[in-house]
Amino acid sequence: MTAPGTIHGIGLGPGAADLMSVRADRLVRAATHVAYFRKAGRAGHARRIVEGLLRPDAVELPMEYPVTTEIPVDDPAYAAALAPFYAAWADRLAAIATHGHDVAVLCEGDPFFYGSFMHLHTRLAGRVPVAVVPGITGMSACWTATGQPVTWGDDALTVLSAVLPEAELAARMCGSEALVVMKLGRNLPKVRRALAAAGLTARAWYIEQGAMPGERALPLSDKADDAAPYFSMIVVHGKGRRP
Amino acid sequence: MTAPGTIHGIGLGPGAADLMSVRADRLVRAATHVAYFRKAGRAGHARRIVEGLLRPDAVELPMEYPVTTEIPVDDPAYAAALAPFYAAWADRLAAIATHGHDVAVLCEGDPFFYGSFMHLHTRLAGRVPVAVVPGITGMSACWTATGQPVTWGDDALTVLSAVLPEAELAARMCGSEALVVMKLGRNLPKVRRALAAAGLTARAWYIEQGAMPGERALPLSDKADDAAPYFSMIVVHGKGRRP
Repeated sequence: MTAPGTIHGIGLGPGAADLMSVRADRLVRAATHVAYFRKAGRAGHARRIVEGLLRPDAVELPMEYPVTTEIPVDDPAYAAALAPFYAAWADRLAAIATHGHDVAVLCEGDPFFYGSFMHLHTRLAGRVPVAVVPGITGMSACWTATGQPVTWGDDALTVLSAVLPEAELAARMCGSEALVVMKLGRNLPKVRRALAAAGLTARAWYIEQGAMPGERALPLSDKADDAAPYFSMIVVHGKGRRP
Repeated sequence: MTAPGTIHGIGLGPGAADLMSVRADRLVRAATHVAYFRKAGRAGHARRIVEGLLRPDAVELPMEYPVTTEIPVDDPAYAAALAPFYAAWADRLAAIATHGHDVAVLCEGDPFFYGSFMHLHTRLAGRVPVAVVPGITGMSACWTATGQPVTWGDDALTVLSAVLPEAELAARMCGSEALVVMKLGRNLPKVRRALAAAGLTARAWYIEQGAMPGERALPLSDKADDAAPYFSMIVVHGKGRRP
């Protein structure tokens, strides 16, 4: 009976290879089996971060999302389309681990902070050994790109998804000193209106590609258009205690 | 005229040396001038993380906080005691940089997410070159220690300081799916009452020393006493979309 391997959910950080942790870097370089999510026909962002680091003989397991772009994420049909996909990959990775191999699952940012790895994790925990390596979040890279601290003293921080309805966004924005709005993309016009309703427009920054070659950070009021890529965020800095 | 050096605010991550980023690790190992905050008479947590990594000839600059334990942090006397301390160290580090040396300032977690580095940063920016390396936050290590993802789908995350008044804590806890309460220490009894008022007791986890040798994570209801060290937190996991 072979001892089972471990499935490592490895946080790769925000996108620069040298912002991976030393632990993640070692695991990625040593990995014999490397799994990562990607859209069909794309290279995959997580895979791109580790370019040049993998063993030449590593077995690569690209986990291609089923095409769901026409289904709203809050539609039950969305979950119905994705559930069998995650279940099938969980089974496949569990089988590899059962044969005694470790598997490195590449995760953008931090594996337990949004992202897709958790849908594997919840199906794998208890079946095979699973270990998680935390990572630097994309939001850390974005507030670093603004050149200003995000939280001071006892500031509260609220992290919101731009996918939420406009009124809910505005209501939740009001309660916090510091704010991050993730998943901007085509939601930027709605987020602008919510920020205005919450009285935060003048303090909001727009950041895209944090810690990546295309990094760009500017006050939102200086951004003339509403084009926002997937890797873009809003940051409002706190104003807490400053000795 | 010597070109000025750069003051690097280096995020060391949550406490395990191998959870530093590759970039932080390289900068720390190469540093000729290494500054870090510590309480008078203590080794300093940031310094402990890099034990064994520094050049033997590195110049160490321990920045010892003036003793302020008897002054509440929201008392103007607290800021009055700390402001000249930060100003003096900013001047000293700026002088070293002006002489052409880089300075590595060791920061626990992420330099722009709470912490003391920002009080130097705000006094140095514009005077000498300053660069910030983001880090894995202590809260990432803590939710990783619980073995469960903290945010799913479009969950909102609220991060609060346990220093806030009880009623404010309870009010702010209500609005969010996922929750982190930092800076527990002697505030744990108050935080317990606020969690109860917000109906979150059953979902709350208590974590201490995340990613450190003394790591411990358990449901808060299983924690019998109210002893909580500085490096302890509450995490309430979100319940969002789970295909």
